[in-house]
Amino acid sequence: MSQQFWPFSKSIAYGGDYNPEQWPREVWDEDVKLMREAGVNFVSVGIFSWAMIEISENEYDFSWLDELLDLLHAHEIKVDLATPTASPPAWFFAAYPHARAINADGVPMGFGSRGMASHSSPEYHEAIVRYANKISRRYADHPAVVMWHVHNEYGVPVGEDFSEQSVQAWRRWLQEKYTDIAGVNEAWGTAFWGQRYTTFDHIPAPARTPSAANPAMQLDWARFTDDQIRACFIRERDAIRAHASQPITTNFMAHQAWNTDLWKWAKEVDIVSDDHYLWSPDPDAHIGLALAADLTRSVAGGKPWVLMEHSTSAVNWQGRNIAKRPGEMHRNALTHVARGADAVMFFQWRASRRGAEKFHSAMVPHAGTNSRIFQEVKSLGQNLQYYGAVQGSLVRNNVAILYDWESLWAQDLEWRPSDALGFREQMRTYYERLWRDGISVDFAHPSHDLSSYELVVAPASYLLRSEDAENLTRYVENGGTLVVACFAAAVDEYDAVHPDGFGAPLKTALGVSVEEYLPLRESETSTINYQASSGQHHALTATIWTEDLTLFGAKVVGQYEDGPAAESAPAITRNALGAGHGWYISANLSVTELAPVFSDIYADANLSAHRELDGVEILRRHHQDAEYVFVINHLNEVVEIPLVGRNMLTNEPADSVTVDAGGYAVVQTSQNGER
Amino acid sequence: MSQQFWPFSKSIAYGGDYNPEQWPREVWDEDVKLMREAGVNFVSVGIFSWAMIEISENEYDFSWLDELLDLLHAHEIKVDLATPTASPPAWFFAAYPHARAINADGVPMGFGSRGMASHSSPEYHEAIVRYANKISRRYADHPAVVMWHVHNEYGVPVGEDFSEQSVQAWRRWLQEKYTDIAGVNEAWGTAFWGQRYTTFDHIPAPARTPSAANPAMQLDWARFTDDQIRACFIRERDAIRAHASQPITTNFMAHQAWNTDLWKWAKEVDIVSDDHYLWSPDPDAHIGLALAADLTRSVAGGKPWVLMEHSTSAVNWQGRNIAKRPGEMHRNALTHVARGADAVMFFQWRASRRGAEKFHSAMVPHAGTNSRIFQEVKSLGQNLQYYGAVQGSLVRNNVAILYDWESLWAQDLEWRPSDALGFREQMRTYYERLWRDGISVDFAHPSHDLSSYELVVAPASYLLRSEDAENLTRYVENGGTLVVACFAAAVDEYDAVHPDGFGAPLKTALGVSVEEYLPLRESETSTINYQASSGQHHALTATIWTEDLTLFGAKVVGQYEDGPAAESAPAITRNALGAGHGWYISANLSVTELAPVFSDIYADANLSAHRELDGVEILRRHHQDAEYVFVINHLNEVVEIPLVGRNMLTNEPADSVTVDAGGYAVVQTSQNGER
Amino acid sequence: MSQQFWPFSKSIAYGGDYNPEQWPREVWDEDVKLMREAGVNFVSVGIFSWAMIEISENEYDFSWLDELLDLLHAHEIKVDLATPTASPPAWFFAAYPHARAINADGVPMGFGSRGMASHSSPEYHEAIVRYANKISRRYADHPAVVMWHVHNEYGVPVGEDFSEQSVQAWRRWLQEKYTDIAGVNEAWGTAFWGQRYTTFDHIPAPARTPSAANPAMQLDWARFTDDQIRACFIRERDAIRAHASQPITTNFMAHQAWNTDLWKWAKEVDIVSDDHYLWSPDPDAHIGLALAADLTRSVAGGKPWVLMEHSTSAVNWQGRNIAKRPGEMHRNALTHVARGADAVMFFQWRASRRGAEKFHSAMVPHAGTNSRIFQEVKSLGQNLQYYGAVQGSLVRNNVAILYDWESLWAQDLEWRPSDALGFREQMRTYYERLWRDGISVDFAHPSHDLSSYELVVAPASYLLRSEDAENLTRYVENGGTLVVACFAAAVDEYDAVHPDGFGAPLKTALGVSVEEYLPLRESETSTINYQASSGQHHALTATIWTEDLTLFGAKVVGQYEDGPAAESAPAITRNALGAGHGWYISANLSVTELAPVFSDIYADANLSAHRELDGVEILRRHHQDAEYVFVINHLNEVVEIPLVGRNMLTNEPADSVTVDAGGYAVVQTSQNGER
Repeated sequence: MSQQFWPFSKSIAYGGDYNPEQWPREVWDEDVKLMREAGVNFVSVGIFSWAMIEISENEYDFSWLDELLDLLHAHEIKVDLATPTASPPAWFFAAYPHARAINADGVPMGFGSRGMASHSSPEYHEAIVRYANKISRRYADHPAVVMWHVHNEYGVPVGEDFSEQSVQAWRRWLQEKYTDIAGVNEAWGTAFWGQRYTTFDHIPAPARTPSAANPAMQLDWARFTDDQIRACFIRERDAIRAHASQPITTNFMAHQAWNTDLWKWAKEVDIVSDDHYLWSPDPDAHIGLALAADLTRSVAGGKPWVLMEHSTSAVNWQGRNIAKRPGEMHRNALTHVARGADAVMFFQWRASRRGAEKFHSAMVPHAGTNSRIFQEVKSLGQNLQYYGAVQGSLVRNNVAILYDWESLWAQDLEWRPSDALGFREQMRTYYERLWRDGISVDFAHPSHDLSSYELVVAPASYLLRSEDAENLTRYVENGGTLVVACFAAAVDEYDAVHPDGFGAPLKTALGVSVEEYLPLRESETSTINYQASSGQHHALTATIWTEDLTLFGAKVVGQYEDGPAAESAPAITRNALGAGHGWYISANLSVTELAPVFSDIYADANLSAHRELDGVEILRRHHQDAEYVFVINHLNEVVEIPLVGRNMLTNEPADSVTVDAGGYAVVQTSQNGER
Repeated sequence: MSQQFWPFSKSIAYGGDYNPEQWPREVWDEDVKLMREAGVNFVSVGIFSWAMIEISENEYDFSWLDELLDLLHAHEIKVDLATPTASPPAWFFAAYPHARAINADGVPMGFGSRGMASHSSPEYHEAIVRYANKISRRYADHPAVVMWHVHNEYGVPVGEDFSEQSVQAWRRWLQEKYTDIAGVNEAWGTAFWGQRYTTFDHIPAPARTPSAANPAMQLDWARFTDDQIRACFIRERDAIRAHASQPITTNFMAHQAWNTDLWKWAKEVDIVSDDHYLWSPDPDAHIGLALAADLTRSVAGGKPWVLMEHSTSAVNWQGRNIAKRPGEMHRNALTHVARGADAVMFFQWRASRRGAEKFHSAMVPHAGTNSRIFQEVKSLGQNLQYYGAVQGSLVRNNVAILYDWESLWAQDLEWRPSDALGFREQMRTYYERLWRDGISVDFAHPSHDLSSYELVVAPASYLLRSEDAENLTRYVENGGTLVVACFAAAVDEYDAVHPDGFGAPLKTALGVSVEEYLPLRESETSTINYQASSGQHHALTATIWTEDLTLFGAKVVGQYEDGPAAESAPAITRNALGAGHGWYISANLSVTELAPVFSDIYADANLSAHRELDGVEILRRHHQDAEYVFVINHLNEVVEIPLVGRNMLTNEPADSVTVDAGGYAVVQTSQNGER
Repeated sequence: MSQQFWPFSKSIAYGGDYNPEQWPREVWDEDVKLMREAGVNFVSVGIFSWAMIEISENEYDFSWLDELLDLLHAHEIKVDLATPTASPPAWFFAAYPHARAINADGVPMGFGSRGMASHSSPEYHEAIVRYANKISRRYADHPAVVMWHVHNEYGVPVGEDFSEQSVQAWRRWLQEKYTDIAGVNEAWGTAFWGQRYTTFDHIPAPARTPSAANPAMQLDWARFTDDQIRACFIRERDAIRAHASQPITTNFMAHQAWNTDLWKWAKEVDIVSDDHYLWSPDPDAHIGLALAADLTRSVAGGKPWVLMEHSTSAVNWQGRNIAKRPGEMHRNALTHVARGADAVMFFQWRASRRGAEKFHSAMVPHAGTNSRIFQEVKSLGQNLQYYGAVQGSLVRNNVAILYDWESLWAQDLEWRPSDALGFREQMRTYYERLWRDGISVDFAHPSHDLSSYELVVAPASYLLRSEDAENLTRYVENGGTLVVACFAAAVDEYDAVHPDGFGAPLKTALGVSVEEYLPLRESETSTINYQASSGQHHALTATIWTEDLTLFGAKVVGQYEDGPAAESAPAITRNALGAGHGWYISANLSVTELAPVFSDIYADANLSAHRELDGVEILRRHHQDAEYVFVINHLNEVVEIPLVGRNMLTNEPADSVTVDAGGYAVVQTSQNGER
């Protein structure tokens, strides 16, 4: 991202997806009036407009879009102009039926929904480049257009494609990666189950197989799918860049989409954008939100990012779509900002009367402008102006969590020791422990330079390259505190078990390796006797997973008391290596059970937990010469936080802020900038 | 239905499906002997006989059917003669493989079961008309044949068909409905997700799509499917009518089949017939039976109808098929009669030794004639003669429940606020409340003239046309009591949210509209403080669903005390309008929780509940000059009901009837006919 | 099986699948060294090696296999040489895409897993015969090769095949079985639902149908599938036999595979082999193991058999793969030996680093040779030598359980009275009752000569031919004790209900028949008052299933006290017939609830239960001149068993053996052989 691209000076952009093509022309005038009333200064336009603009092949009607952009410009509303390539028109699929994605059972996707195009289709490639050329040439210099929004939520609803053209592309991809077929045979271990190939031409997609398909093949297929989708983005981006100079983005779905390795994607965009929706069954869904926001900022390299979509209240596509309670939208938006977002956008401006998402909340709900929602939308727009000065400031953390999409893809394949231990659940558990302890984190890839962090946590590093394990080992040697959760470093980048067994690459860092995985039955538990550094003993209850460890120098700080492991066998270990420490937690423990262990971990890392404020987010952003503190109170009680500075919402000086139940505050402290 | 068609004078027809082609000839003689012994006077013949009669294309062998009909006639057993078009022969599908229905994944249905024909296939159309012509010409004047039975249970097991010919028919259907493609785009809101069409030729069936398919498209698809199936019925009916004058029917599955809008179907038949089977997991399945019977009578316009199939004991196609207990079959049959059935028929006469339904109970079970079941079958046949005089009498109610298949189709689409709130469950809950209160009901379409009803209940009016809402509003103004349950009037006939928001068309009638839906999580509840007109307060527990209401004049009679709605926010409201009242119940409440609310509703409607007799059905049928009261005791205790008249089972005068646990009585009262 | 084929004199073979093609050449040398260290003397080679040997069509590279066999021979390790026909190479399916199996939805199986070949493909037939010829000609005289291992686990992962060639074969199979189409119509009862056929050419496979497919068709389809698969085995076997004289086997999966009628398969092999894996959710999975071992020995006609695969610890393909605890592997192996196995083999020698089963345990685990597992593998190898003398001895039992795969296929079809009553669950329940009572059993087919048994138990004889029922009746008349569990003798070999109703063929033997099945709802129970011969009354709780019985002379020993059956109706009956007794247990009872009933049954059969040792297996094998007693203690406590003889593990004389918790003993008693 080039910071100079930011189209708003000292202000948080505010708005949402705007789909006026669903409404009569007279509504547009009301829209822009209401946008101004609500403080909206930025809208995404054209995301699903292909069929309205390219009305038949190569025949364009830009008239309504011309009018719309002029109208928005006249009202000083900036535009994030989209390519609508997530949803090609009906005429396109009628002309090119092979451009449809096909599922693992050979069923071509049908029209009438969205996201059905095959990302490997040459006809699709030609059509999206033609469209991107056309629209960017036309609006490159339009004064309202300040950003380009390519496609929509790449990888959902359909990522994988089992069409013939996809299989052809897959073979080309493999040939490029492995050069000769022997490379594939070696990498995939095709000697197992008699899968040896003699030519790339015989390699299929991992479609419906009688039993588990080769896991290394599936892992490469996930990489291929990601690459294939990303290549489409690059095609469009390059077409736009040939004509236009505004920053180009596409909206990610961090921690919610499967098929996109955002470390790779973030390198290709000018500005990182993210969509985030609360997960209704989770009463603490705001913790998942915080995780997604931190992950987004992290893939953006710490730079400010655009919250491209979230919701004013309920969504419509979950089983029971829980509406947000008064104040919740504001807390959600503020959490994003506090974690680095410089734009607060919603799907969508005005609720659709028709179509699959008519029950999705919006800035202007079906109930109209007298509604609670619209009033809160206005209030949020107002408040964003009060703390607009934070725009461009950065978040700094001294704790990192390791996150690798390749490990997600590999761990969640079938036929592992226990289906009940999942990447995302492990990630959430450790993130939540840190969140509840008031410790703000970055995410990092295991290959990254971690030297700036006091603590690095690896909740789900099932796939860990040897060289990345060496990186972690050096990190410990150099004084870092490393925490590794169970089932780590089992396999390498080909999903092959590491030569010396499970966990072997981390043997030096952790002083331990795994002799055998010991999963538990559905209702079973195992008790760990944890000896805290305080001298206190804690009986921790593990579920799902335990392990049989072999010690290589680590000190045992927790022992199994029952369950499948031998009595008193090591469960939690701490290894001194060089100037640092490597912790290993060999069982699956809940957020609560992890608490005493992390108390000791923080001591190693010289960090302080704030468990007394569990439920209150206190987050900081920094300009070179200023610090902004965000306090977001998720509790049902008032809290008072000592903070010397200026309350940005009241514009009054403060020694402390009193934050209502469910409330929030933003304070510019008297700190003089960077710490 | 033309009443003159009724083939039995002053008697309830009794019998079942008769499939003698499954048995050697000598069994037929035993059959007719046993039928006489059991009081059977009516059987359905030929429902699955296509392959036995048209033994190859256009080559017929009617000899066995000739012999059978003569045999039945000789024993004075009347025949409901079927067209077997639900199950075309193997040779037909071998000759016309494209005549098979295809599922949403593109898989053609295989032979070896039943119901696999494509209702859009021209070859199928030709074959069924040819067969109907042939059989009706042959037996038009056969003295045994008193009714024609077209096809079997239209719409099950397969209704939808995604074959190419079905898609072609679908496009023609849309063209006829919308004239031009702009009409489709408008009605379906194709601007959403970029689905705009430029020609009918590009419109697909809503087959497997990557994400939710356009809901208005799906709703039209349900209408199309229904129309397409019904057109097949009409083809056969007209072919028969060209030759024969007996009444023509087909067996519905009220409240159990999905794809048939019985308001439309009932207009096409001469006599309404229904099949009903208890739902095994439901220990109160007799309430579902009552609902289905009332719905059947209602679509029949109140006229007597044929219970074409029910079971003597267990069925075979549910997960755990519960056998009926002694007396249960008789109570079931009597409930149907009391609710308007003039024929009591079973699937089937003699249990099949072979095939998919060999475990389905029958009048002659595998255990033979010494069995409990056959003895009860004889006893029922005997009893039906005692109260045969009720034939032709009518049921009159002053309460109606609104039932609209289009609302069912629309509400149960994916991506609504909560999957847990379903049309059928809401319908059952409100029906059961009235059943337990001893209040007998009709069903009505919201467009019907409702002026004869004191009370109209709308348990599940998610889809409500504006003009139908106006009809309901006039009903209230004119003195009616209207009760509307949550999630009502959300959308119009195109599944589009009503212009002024959820519930807007009922704003005048109810004095309230909905600002936002507030579904609950799986384990959540919300408490409503209901202020009964008696002054008593009731704490009602809502599950699944609550709402945020805006008042427009209604009086709040129940308030949310906890849950997502604001504290003390309106939950249950009562609106005075003109001479009537409109009630709105914005939460999902169980049958039990609804009790105090309905007590007050009955007061508004001048109705009396009989909760002390919960579990005892007391039902009335009327001739112009007589009243018949049916008492059906589902309790495990004896009840005594004061009823002055003649006990039709004992043929003795009575001041009251004492009904055993699980027993029943039929009394012709001294009332002189119509009230 | 020809006993002379046994390749090892007075020793239990020990080893496992050996897949060196997955490892560099230098590992092979370590492998043979470690094999010797572990006592391994037998390995299966080449099971998945097709693509490594026939590297393109008709081009062979046997060089590595030559080298491997010589290496093994040099180290005195015998070889069970496989044909790899369970997994044809990628080039094969590329050349012959029609050789892929197709599922019921028409989806062809994809490459990249295993087991995808169509067993009806002529190209597949040609290829497997060619391969079998080639390999058997080459290695017929190799001194290491002592057995041939055809294919792998026939019937899994895919048995059924809906390809066009399979349908053609199916029609030929039907034509051969029924001669003319009238035979099919009669056998399948095609008069039901109008399924009459006029030619074999119209008969489809029972692929995706709209509703339940004809059950007799499905049952024949299961027989056809089994025959079709077995014909492939026979092709290969005969090709090998043309060149080689070593015994030929294939590895069964008794009680775990569906599609193979092992009574038929066992007749085709020279030596019976079985694979067995514990079922993780079952904490008493060793009882299922015992069942499988007894079933394997029984299909082998009582002769010793090869345990071809089991696991040293966890498998990888279940939901939660539970690792074996210390000692468990040894108990498992010993149970197999005690129940007749003369070879103890594992999947596999060395854990695979790559592929779908990298998490499957092995003899040499990922953790290497210092691991617990390898130490136990060595210890087991050592112990097997101590009791090698048992090789060739036989197991003799006087109790038989009836087991018929055709009854399994028929009972588990859809649309039966209750889905909750399954063949395998019934089989396990009755087997477990006998296991806990210390009573060792054979399995028998209902057509077998049962006269040598004191007790015959029929836990799941849903399908029972009339002639087999007569066999059972004669068995009782001649003094046997027969126990029949509910839902027995419902149908004949065509899945047709027996002419006189449910259970009719056993009416004479049991003195009872079934008037009606009375399944229970999910949470319902029914209480049976059982009057033990001791005079004591036991209240037994039935779940899932009860029945309404008609007595024909049986004495009622248990009566229903509640539930759907009439009060005091017969539930458990005992019939005296000739010199024997026939018991009927009409309800589904748990292992525990069956205990008092079986106490009385044992009295009838002159058997003694040993409930005080529930959890301890005491098993005997016999040579003509010696008896070996195996004691396997599954309890957590020490047991002492009086046994006079020689402890084979310590080689010391013994009056009794003390067996540790989880321990075992093998004693050659002073009994002089056959009893």
